[in-house]
This record gives sequence, C-alpha cells and structure tokens, in this order.
Amino acid sequence: MLDFTFQSPTKFYFGHDTELKVGEAVRETGAHKVLIHYGSGSAERSGLLNRVRKSLADAGIASVELGGVVPNPELSLVYEGIELGRREQVDLILSVGGGSAADSAKAIAIGIPYEGDVWDFYSSDAKPEKGIPVATILTIAATGTEGSPSSVISNVTADGVLKRGCDSQLIRPVFSILNPELTYTLPNYQLAAGATDMISHILERYISNTVDVDLTDRMSEAVMQSVISAAPRALADNTDYDSHATLMWAGMVAHNNILGVGRQQDWSTHQIEHEISADFQVTHGAGLAVIFPAFMTYTCKTNVNRYVQFATRVMGVPDDPYHPEAVAKAGISRYKDFLSSIGMPLELRAFGIKEEDIPGLAARVRRNNGDYVGYFQPLTTSDIEEILRLCL
Amino acid sequence: MLDFTFQSPTKFYFGHDTELKVGEAVRETGAHKVLIHYGSGSAERSGLLNRVRKSLADAGIASVELGGVVPNPELSLVYEGIELGRREQVDLILSVGGGSAADSAKAIAIGIPYEGDVWDFYSSDAKPEKGIPVATILTIAATGTEGSPSSVISNVTADGVLKRGCDSQLIRPVFSILNPELTYTLPNYQLAAGATDMISHILERYISNTVDVDLTDRMSEAVMQSVISAAPRALADNTDYDSHATLMWAGMVAHNNILGVGRQQDWSTHQIEHEISADFQVTHGAGLAVIFPAFMTYTCKTNVNRYVQFATRVMGVPDDPYHPEAVAKAGISRYKDFLSSIGMPLELRAFGIKEEDIPGLAARVRRNNGDYVGYFQPLTTSDIEEILRLCL
Repeated sequence: MLDFTFQSPTKFYFGHDTELKVGEAVRETGAHKVLIHYGSGSAERSGLLNRVRKSLADAGIASVELGGVVPNPELSLVYEGIELGRREQVDLILSVGGGSAADSAKAIAIGIPYEGDVWDFYSSDAKPEKGIPVATILTIAATGTEGSPSSVISNVTADGVLKRGCDSQLIRPVFSILNPELTYTLPNYQLAAGATDMISHILERYISNTVDVDLTDRMSEAVMQSVISAAPRALADNTDYDSHATLMWAGMVAHNNILGVGRQQDWSTHQIEHEISADFQVTHGAGLAVIFPAFMTYTCKTNVNRYVQFATRVMGVPDDPYHPEAVAKAGISRYKDFLSSIGMPLELRAFGIKEEDIPGLAARVRRNNGDYVGYFQPLTTSDIEEILRLCL
Repeated sequence: MLDFTFQSPTKFYFGHDTELKVGEAVRETGAHKVLIHYGSGSAERSGLLNRVRKSLADAGIASVELGGVVPNPELSLVYEGIELGRREQVDLILSVGGGSAADSAKAIAIGIPYEGDVWDFYSSDAKPEKGIPVATILTIAATGTEGSPSSVISNVTADGVLKRGCDSQLIRPVFSILNPELTYTLPNYQLAAGATDMISHILERYISNTVDVDLTDRMSEAVMQSVISAAPRALADNTDYDSHATLMWAGMVAHNNILGVGRQQDWSTHQIEHEISADFQVTHGAGLAVIFPAFMTYTCKTNVNRYVQFATRVMGVPDDPYHPEAVAKAGISRYKDFLSSIGMPLELRAFGIKEEDIPGLAARVRRNNGDYVGYFQPLTTSDIEEILRLCL
C-alpha cells in the first residue's frame, strides 16, 4: 500500500425530494447570490428548475441563470458564465444537471476570480489558486463529478477539439443534492453509459500493480458488484427507486477516491476515450464500454493475477489455479457480456470510427501525454493503435 | 434505502512518517497555538511527542501540553484541558494517542467556548454550537474517532461512573494523521480489541431491518472481510506494514458512516458495553467481543436473512436455503471462533462479572435509554438481562 492523503469534504443530501433543500443548503454555505447553470430544456420541462428557484427564493437567496450546457461541455459557454458571474457578483455556482453541467460550473467557479484565461487550468499552464464555491443538483449518475475535484472541458479550436481535465480541491462541490427519482426520466442508453462510466472509474484504480491494498480492493469489488446488479434492474423499471439509488450513490463512491487510495492508478483508458468523444461526439460511458475490455485484453499478460481476481471476485468466474490466463479472459469476456446486456456498444464502428481513423486518434492521445500513457502497462503510440484495432 | 445526509470532511494524512507533517497540517488550518493532548508516557518514551514538537516548532506553531488521558477518558481531565486551553488561548486541540486522547480532546474543544458545564453536551442537556478545531495523530486503530463526529467521556460521580457520548459535526477532526508504524508497539490484546471494535462499528450498522441497501451491505462486508484477514497477520508480526495499515484505515472507514448511510442503525450492543466498561474498567473492544455474539444469538430469529447474509458473505458459511437458521448460527459461531483466535474473551467472567451483577447492569443500560434500547429488535430490561446471561 502506498502513502496517501485523502479528503472528501462535500456534503451530500441524498434521497427523495432533496432538491427542495437547496435553499437551506445554500444558506448554510453563507452564499447570497447563485448562478444556476444547467443544460437542455429538460430541467425546465420537468419542473425541476422551478422547484430549485422556489427553494432558493424561499431561503432569501438571489439567483441568475445560464442554460445551454451541452454534453462534452464547451469552453465558449464557460466564458459566458464567467462574465455573467462577475457582472452579477454571484458567490456560488449551482449546477443543475449531469456531469457536463457540473464540470462547466466548476470551470466558471475557478474562472471568475482568475485574471488570465481559464483554459490555462485545463492546458496545465497554471494552477487555480482561488475559486468561488460550486454545488450540484445531480440528474445523471455517471461521472462522479458531484463529489470529485475534477472537471473536463472541450475547447473547439482550429486544430480540432481539445478535451482536457483540471483537478483541484477548489472545485470539490461544497454540497451535492442527489435525488435518485430525478434519474427516472433518463433514456436507457444514458443510464447504461452512466453505469459503465462508474465501473470504469473503479477499474482505472483497481487495475494496478500496487500490491497489498486488500481493503480498497474489496471495497472496489463490492461497488462494482452492486452496480452490475443494479443496472439491469434500473433499466428494466424506470421507477425502481432502490436500483436508481444504488447507481446514484455508487457513481459518487466510485470517484471521490475512497476506492483509489494507497495505489498507483492508471487512467489510460479515460485518456484514450477522451480523444474519441472529443473527435466523434461519443457519449463518454459508451466510449469506455468499447475501449475498456480491449485495454484489459491487451494488458492481461502484464499482471494476470489482477485480472484473475477481477474475474473470480467480481464477475463470478470459478477459479482455476492451473489456468489463470483462461480465468482472466473469462472475466473480461463476462464483463463484455454485461456491457452488451445493458445495451452498450463494444465496437468502434458503432461510432462510425474506421481503421483509417486509428493512427490519428492514437497520435492525439500521445500528443497530450508525454512518452507513455498510463502506469499499469505504460502505452506507446503503437500499443494504443493495437488496443483501438481490438475494438474494430 | 432510507434518505440520508452524509459528510466526512476530515483530511487524512496516511502512511510512513506522516506525523512529521503535523506542523504543515496545522499551518494549513490557520491555527497558531496548539494544545497537545496525550495519554500515558509511551508517546514520550517512543519519541513520538518529540517529533511532533519539532514539526510544530519548525512550522512556527506554538504549543502547550496536557498528558495523562486514561482509557475511558475522564471528565476531570477535560475540565483541566478547558482551563488550560482558555488560559493559553489555544486555537486547535491536537490529540496524540488512541481513541481516549481524541475523545478527551474533542470534549476540550467544545468546552473551551462554552459558558456552561461541558458535561451538558454528554448528558444531552445542551447541544454544542461552537468549538475550536480538533486534530488527531492516531496510535491505536480502533474507535474511528479520527474521522467521526463522536466523543465518549466518563464522569465519575457518587452514583457510579456515567459513560456518555456526544455527537456533533463540530468535533469531526479537521485532519488526522495515520501512520500504521505507530501501532507496531501496541500489545496484542489492544490490537485485537481494536479490530473487534471496528467490526462492531460495522455490525451496529449492518444488522439492520432496512432493505435494499445493497451497496453499503457489500461495502460493509468487504471491510469486515479485510479486517478479519488482516488482524491475525498483524498479531503474528508486529512489523508487518500492510496488515497494520489495513486495520488503521479500516478503523476510519468503519466509523465515518460511509457504511451506515441509508439504513436504520442499532447501537444497542455499544450501549450495553458502555455500562460494562464504565463499571468494570473493561477495554471497550474486549467488552464488545463478549456482548456482540450474544446479541446476535438472541436476535437471530428477528431477521434470520440478515444473519444468513452475514454468515455466507462474511464468514464463508456455505448457503443452505432449507436451513437458514442453521446457516445463521454457523455464521455467529464462526465469528466467535475468529474473536477467540485473536485472543478476545467471550465470557463476562473474564471481567469478573457474575450473574448477580446482571440486573444492575441491565438497569443502568435502560436508565439511560428510554423504554427500549436499539431498533433491530428493541430491547427491554429483561431482553438485556437475557443477553448478558448468554455471556456468563
């Protein structure tokens, strides 16, 4: 087990009608004027925004609004939010929506007090030193941004789309409101992509060469099993509270890093997927459904024991000490079966990506990531190409 | 799953030599003058206190000291700490030691700004509204106080010893330093009692009638399995880093309530044990080793499925759907075997408690707890007596 520092200060209000507590929750932070940041019209149509507005008003909290966040949220809207936030002197950014709204809100929060270009924080040219508080009301269980110190933003440039992340404790939400009923109206594809995203967040931590991290291993296996059990139930019945609640809480637990402490993490699959979703406007979780099994297959021999443990403890493959590689592969195969059963794609062709796109994609991943990508098996450009070819 | 609010803001510095970071950690909180609160001479003899003093001095942090905390920490020393803290105008209480030092430090922290008697917070006559920050350097993995909002203090009165708890977010440590190597010198009995305490903290949450809490069920099972696996290794080799590290982190996870969210918790076993350790100066974990299996045996029929799940998922009992009660009992029996294997007592006589002591003990538990104790199976005085008789 490696040494680590861990902190996860976000306050979570979880359960039925918790969005009605938002006014009180904002007041508890000491904020007075909120920028409500949201995406499409669904938060308006469903009445959620009106409930939020009323709760804030009842608590004496002023607010301004900025909608229009798109999936893979864009820098241009972040700039708009920063201007609006400065002009209106807001002191808290409240995202209402999924991971995209929250990530965009986080960028606005560190952009407002910064004199330079907020993109500096995403291009690693600067580190945020100040930020105004961010809070979220979550409507999609997936990215874990509601409890994480991370934000990912896309910058549409003449060179193509740059999708980059920023990590800072300044953008951990001060509170997040998680009402599983708000996820009932999600299309099944989004719900399944969310479940895939959260399992992937755990796997990026779990597929590691660090030994003797039994406690987080077992906790990670527990959360993966629970997601694998809940996702089909949530898909089959979009009013089943408990399976939606399991997914919603699992999404947070999977990414606040309680499952990542004490180990070297990898994240190469996420880096590869970010390029795919930047270039082909793919839903992040669906992209991960394609890439992760290929990454696992490609790296299986690097540490077959790790994949045997995944196979036997998470995917229910019977152990066979004489044939560890077969056990490992059976685990990966069962994971693919699970992804397919919840409606996730397993091949790049689902996104219109062809063999000739692969060298460009692989080069873009490497361009952003030094000589190698990841740690479990450090990947060269040709490794990434091979992984992508496994998904054709 | 029940609705819940969850927050665990403590910052944890975990790993080798992390006590050397204490000066920097205090500076990060903005504090300037620290009351170092500790127990016996072992922190002095081992050199730990000197390392702490040096780190604080290097960071420009002033300090005063108050030692002498005893197991089942006493109110009289808390009063001393409050006086000292006020006189010296300290702005952070730093406990160096186990759960007792930390619980005593927490009492001092809410006592300093309070005009009344700090015991009001423990006798439930008042709720703390202000507190100065608390931080801990942990030397025993057990109570989870390093990440919890709880403190338990003993008040020696003419009527006997009153052992009472106070819960408040004000006494969550702002940071806790966890260096597993600091637990190498613990006597095996203390180490085993610590492991028992942490499993008990999970069981108080896990033995619940709330249904559909699959995610926290599985996470709880994961942590219990990991403690059961690590404890014998730590006992067998007092320099084995990874097993000591597992126990140290498990103690925190077991009690910061991430394993308790969404369910009705019980805590009757803790309430019974508090009376035993108050009256007979028993090590808390050892008392729990005696009481918990008896509680489980007594309440088994209340919800046999719960005990079947514990038996099959945690204790490795093969399932037998035709004989659930036998499976449940086998789980409890294996748990007793585990406790015995790590050197824990299983009978009250180990503490010199006899049959004639039982009515008095049971009456004391009930006196503090209204008509019933606990929720899983609400216990009357005669239920508590029956449970205690099972431990004779």
